[in-house]
This record gives sequence, C-alpha cells and structure tokens, in this order.
Amino acid sequence: MKFNNHNVYVSPKATLGKNVKIGDYTSILDNVVIGDNTTISNNCIIGEPLSDYYENEEYTNPQTIIGSNSLIRSHTIIYCGNIIGNNFSTGHRVTIREKMKIGNHCRIGTLSDLQGFSEMGDYCWLHSNVHIGQQSKIGNFVFIYPYTVFTNDPHPPSNVCIGPTVGDYSQIAVSVVLLPGVKIGKHVLIGAQSVVGKDIEDYQLAVGNPAKSIKDVRELKSKETGKSHYPWPYNFERGMPWQGLGFDKWIESKNK
Amino acid sequence: MKFNNHNVYVSPKATLGKNVKIGDYTSILDNVVIGDNTTISNNCIIGEPLSDYYENEEYTNPQTIIGSNSLIRSHTIIYCGNIIGNNFSTGHRVTIREKMKIGNHCRIGTLSDLQGFSEMGDYCWLHSNVHIGQQSKIGNFVFIYPYTVFTNDPHPPSNVCIGPTVGDYSQIAVSVVLLPGVKIGKHVLIGAQSVVGKDIEDYQLAVGNPAKSIKDVRELKSKETGKSHYPWPYNFERGMPWQGLGFDKWIESKNK
Amino acid sequence: MKFNNHNVYVSPKATLGKNVKIGDYTSILDNVVIGDNTTISNNCIIGEPLSDYYENEEYTNPQTIIGSNSLIRSHTIIYCGNIIGNNFSTGHRVTIREKMKIGNHCRIGTLSDLQGFSEMGDYCWLHSNVHIGQQSKIGNFVFIYPYTVFTNDPHPPSNVCIGPTVGDYSQIAVSVVLLPGVKIGKHVLIGAQSVVGKDIEDYQLAVGNPAKSIKDVRELKSKETGKSHYPWPYNFERGMPWQGLGFDKWIESKNK
Repeated sequence: MKFNNHNVYVSPKATLGKNVKIGDYTSILDNVVIGDNTTISNNCIIGEPLSDYYENEEYTNPQTIIGSNSLIRSHTIIYCGNIIGNNFSTGHRVTIREKMKIGNHCRIGTLSDLQGFSEMGDYCWLHSNVHIGQQSKIGNFVFIYPYTVFTNDPHPPSNVCIGPTVGDYSQIAVSVVLLPGVKIGKHVLIGAQSVVGKDIEDYQLAVGNPAKSIKDVRELKSKETGKSHYPWPYNFERGMPWQGLGFDKWIESKNK
Repeated sequence: MKFNNHNVYVSPKATLGKNVKIGDYTSILDNVVIGDNTTISNNCIIGEPLSDYYENEEYTNPQTIIGSNSLIRSHTIIYCGNIIGNNFSTGHRVTIREKMKIGNHCRIGTLSDLQGFSEMGDYCWLHSNVHIGQQSKIGNFVFIYPYTVFTNDPHPPSNVCIGPTVGDYSQIAVSVVLLPGVKIGKHVLIGAQSVVGKDIEDYQLAVGNPAKSIKDVRELKSKETGKSHYPWPYNFERGMPWQGLGFDKWIESKNK
Repeated sequence: MKFNNHNVYVSPKATLGKNVKIGDYTSILDNVVIGDNTTISNNCIIGEPLSDYYENEEYTNPQTIIGSNSLIRSHTIIYCGNIIGNNFSTGHRVTIREKMKIGNHCRIGTLSDLQGFSEMGDYCWLHSNVHIGQQSKIGNFVFIYPYTVFTNDPHPPSNVCIGPTVGDYSQIAVSVVLLPGVKIGKHVLIGAQSVVGKDIEDYQLAVGNPAKSIKDVRELKSKETGKSHYPWPYNFERGMPWQGLGFDKWIESKNK
C-alpha cells in the first residue's frame, strides 16, 4: 500500500541496514546511515544538505545517523549531521536541522521544528508543533507539549545564543515560552502558557507570566486515583523502560 | 496545470465518485471512499494507515469516507478511519488522524493538526494551525483561530484523556488554550491568548489567564455599524446556510 | 544529490532566468517568472492557483514574480499573484498566499504562513512558524519570531479586515498576538507572549497582556558587552547592508 518503490532515491553514498523500508518519493542523500529494521515513510528527505551545498561545488554532506527500529513518518526532513539513536519515531512534516544529538526511544511529533545544535537524552517525547531553538539541552524522559518554544537570544537580534536546559522527567505543558538560558530542574511541571525567565528548582510546579513556583508537584492529586500523581513515573508506564516492572524496581535494576 | 496524472496512486480497494480529480503525487490508499465532484490536490495521502500497519502483515485499513463537493488542498494527510461530510475543504499540509467524525461544510486551515478520536458538527471553520487534541467535542458553526490548542491530559503524562467541549456558534480566538474537560457554551467568544480552565456559560465573552467571563457578547458593538455584532449570525452570512435569507428566517425554515 | 530532474514540471507559460535550478517533484505553474541564479528546491509549488481555478474553466493564473539570487527550500507553496524581490529565501513548508508584495533580502522561516494581501519591506526576517494575516503592513528590517500571529478581525467573524502595521527595525518576539489594526512604531521591541491591542510608540519595549510600554529600548544592556544593545543595528550586522561598514556610515551613504 505505501511501499511501492516509486521514485525512491537512495544515494550510492548512503548505507542502509537490514530490512529498511523506504516510502515513495523519499530521498536518502549522501552519507546517511540507517540502522536495521527502520522504516522511512514517503516524501521524506534524510540528509538534507547545509546551505553551503547550494554555493560550493566541493561540498561534502556530513554524516547522518538514524538508529535501528525507527519509524520516520511522511514529509519529514532530517538534515545531515544529526546523530539519532534507536527506536526513534516522528510524526509527519517534522524538520530536524543539523547537529542534533538525540538519544534512544525519542518521539518527535507532527510539525515539530528542531533548529539543530542541541542535545536530547533518552525517552523524550515531543508532542506536535514544538519549537526547539539552537543550544538547548534536554535531559531524559522529558515531555514537551504543542506550541511550546525554546528561545535563545536574550536581546534580539544579537549574536548571543544561550538555550534553555531541562532536567530529567520534567514536563513542559502547551504554549509555554522558555526564555534564553533558563534552567529547569528535574521532575518539574511547567503549566500551560507560562513564560519562564527564572530558573526552576526540582519538583516544582511553576505557572504564569512570569512563571513562579507555586507548589511541590508531589502535592498534585490524580483525577483517576485521588492520590499524588507526581513523580509521574510511579503512575505512567506506557512506553517507558519500567513498564511492567515499576519505577522503583527499574531504578534498582539500573543501580545494580 | 495541476492535474497531469503524474504518479497518482489509487488503491484498487478505493472507491471514487463521479468527476473526482486527483493531483500529482497523491496516494489514495485502501478502503477510501470519495464522494462525487471532490478534488484531492497534489502530494496528499488519503487513508494513511495506523501504526499497526508497519508491524502487522495482516493489517487491513479501516474505511475512510470523504464526502462530495470537497476540496483537499496539497500536502494534506488524512488517516484512515475518518468519516467526513460533504462540502469539506482543507488548506495545505493539514493532518487529520484517525476516528474523527466531521460534519458537512467544514473548513480546516493550513497546518491544522487534528489528533483524531473527536467530533465536529457542521459549518465549523478552523483557521490555520489549530491543534485539536483527542476526545474533543465541537458543535456546529464553531470558528477557531490560529495557534489555539485543545488539551486533554489534566496531569501530564497520564492515562486520563478528557477533551474540551464547545457549543454551537462559539468563537475561540487566536493562541487560546482550552484545558482538559472544560465546557464552553453556545455563542461564546473567547479572547486572544486566554487559558480556559473553568466552564463558560452561553453568550459570555471570556478573556485572560485564567479566563473569566467579563461581559455578555451581545454588548459588543461592531466597528462597521456601531450596533451589536453578536450573536454574529445576524451580521455574518458568507458561506453560511442563512446567506441571502437572514438568520431568523433560516431558523424558522429549519423549525418548520 | 538534490537536482536530478526527476518529475520536475515547468509550465510552458513560465519564464525562468539564467542558471535557475529546480528540485525534484517541484511544479512551476502558469505565468511564473523566476529571476537569475534562483534555486527552487524539491517538492515545491510555485504559482499555486486561486480557488477559482477549481471551478472556472476559463481561469488564467495571475503573474507571480520571484527575484534573482533566491533560495526556496523544499515543500514550500507560493501562490500566484505574488511579487517577491531579489535575494529572497525561505525555510521548508512555507505557505505564501496571493497578492503579497515582498521586498528584497527577506527570509521567511520554516512553516510560516503568510495569508496574502499584505506588504513587507526589505530585509525582513521571519523566523519559523510566523502567521501573518491579511492586510498587514510590515516595514524594513523587521524581525518576527516563532508562533507570533498578526490578526485582522476585531469581532470574529465579520467582514472587517484591518491588519497590524509594524515600523522599520522593530522586533516582535515569540508567541506574540498583534490585535487588529494596531500600529507599532520604529525600533520597538515587543516581549515574548505579549498581546498588543494599543499602538506602541517608537523605541519602546512593550510587554504583557495587554501590552504596555515599560521602558525605552535604549536602556536595555547587552549580555555580551554590558553596553546598550538597542538600536540593534549598531550591534548586529550579519546579513545586513551595513555589514562591515557600520550603521551610521550606511545611513550616511544612503542619504548622499
């Protein structure tokens, strides 16, 4: 139905693992390496060249790596020079510019726009339409929701570029602005439409413009159970490495 | 100019009505049914399969229905399992995930992202870049403006999914966040960049973060006429079923 | 790598300058004129027809002009009836509807959505995901950041359409809403997530919802130098016509 080998272009300089499927009208450009069992759906460009390509005849595409067991959905553009882990997935029309380092088991939602030159750990889930500016640092198990933007220029336009940092397990809700260089701790929850300009400590719920810490997330109750919902890994397992095991036992097993 | 029959793919399991036009590089996948006189422009995918397709060789695509006299603009992706009425139109690069029920005469703007599992009545107009989360319920004649997001998880991440409900004739302005499970009445106007966490009664203008009702919409004057602009159906007819007839007469004719 | 002449469509009624490169799967439609040394990357549509095309067999595509030395990145859709200057560039998946007049040296970021019927001067840089409603007027050297929206209907829905006006050198930060008809002066800085409903004088920093002028931008210090950063042209030269010359000398040279 979707893999008819119509107008697929694979550069002779690309390297495909075993059982890689490529959708119609997709181009895999120079020096792209794709891991085993990965599917690239239709109308994608993997290894999109840098601007220099259009001007310099001697241009060589930097290496791009996409891990194994990944699913890139249609109309996605991934620039050259990215290093992406295993079990990666994207929605549709995702754009990932150059020089990102993305861990394993990450999911990037439809229309999200990653501007490159940033780091992301493992098991990060970006929902639709998240904008990550350059020089951002995102930990592990960080979830980010639609229309949230990570900024990096404190007095635009300038040559300063200092992105936000977000710690492990933090949740950044919809339509949030993280101002340049702000540091968000671990297990933080940032409320919808907040503007975060000051650093936020671990385990804080911060809301508003300007965002202020208003309580410890561990005081927030679940609508399902009436009990404390945070730290969320105790109450959400789907797709997480502690699924079926529980968060404590998983932590224990890691520490062994 | 646009319909050159280049690289059009129509599944043998799809059913096309009379006078259906399909643009170049568009794929109509299994079990899609398209009504008479509908145009699907170029680079679209209609009947995009569920994730299960990539894993399960026995996968069958659920039926997808798009009504007659519709216009799907280029680069739009509509998943399988949607039931969409007649006189539907989209802008470019719209994404509609599975299991939406969309009425007649709806318009979905460029880049809008409908996450599926939701309902929308007749004559709803979504402007560009509207994000509708799962389990949303939208009445008839509801207009929604850019960068507005309907959320559904009260304490992310969790397994709770309760979308907002919006009543007939309501207008949700730009960059608004509707929080999970909120209920908005009929003929409501939500102001730009509001965050709506509490239910809003019929005919209220609500603004702010958190949004509060500040007056009855019927007190708002038109800049054109100086008279009351709301209920808007008395002052806006373009594309509406009461065009040329007037809202009162149309209501009367319906009640006969 | 990217220009393989696969499935390129150029209308016999289009006019291409010298050394124009067209990417795979791109269509250049009727009455498009493209200047010398311009590159249109893959999967683009240039000269997208108006809605009337789908209904009227006698439809003729209005002329579309794209200047020389421009770079249109992939998946971009530019409607017919636009007049765009030289040294233009776009990111990916940009949509530009009809009847825009865009000056020289403008850059429109990935996913930006220009609704047409608007004007933009020279050296305007729109970052990713900017939404410009109809009847907007944007001066020269205006920079606009992600998820910002220019609105035009004061009491939606209505037949009134009055866009915002932004003066030369002004900077509109992320996630800002400009309300219908608002006038923003020159050298203004609008802070992140502001909602601007009242006119803003030259050289003001305005923030908040509703946005208020809080200080003169010339009081704002640079994080790099500790000195006043604004007017920014004294401290930012990259890509600007005063690069290597300095702003004062460039102004002088213009006034000769």
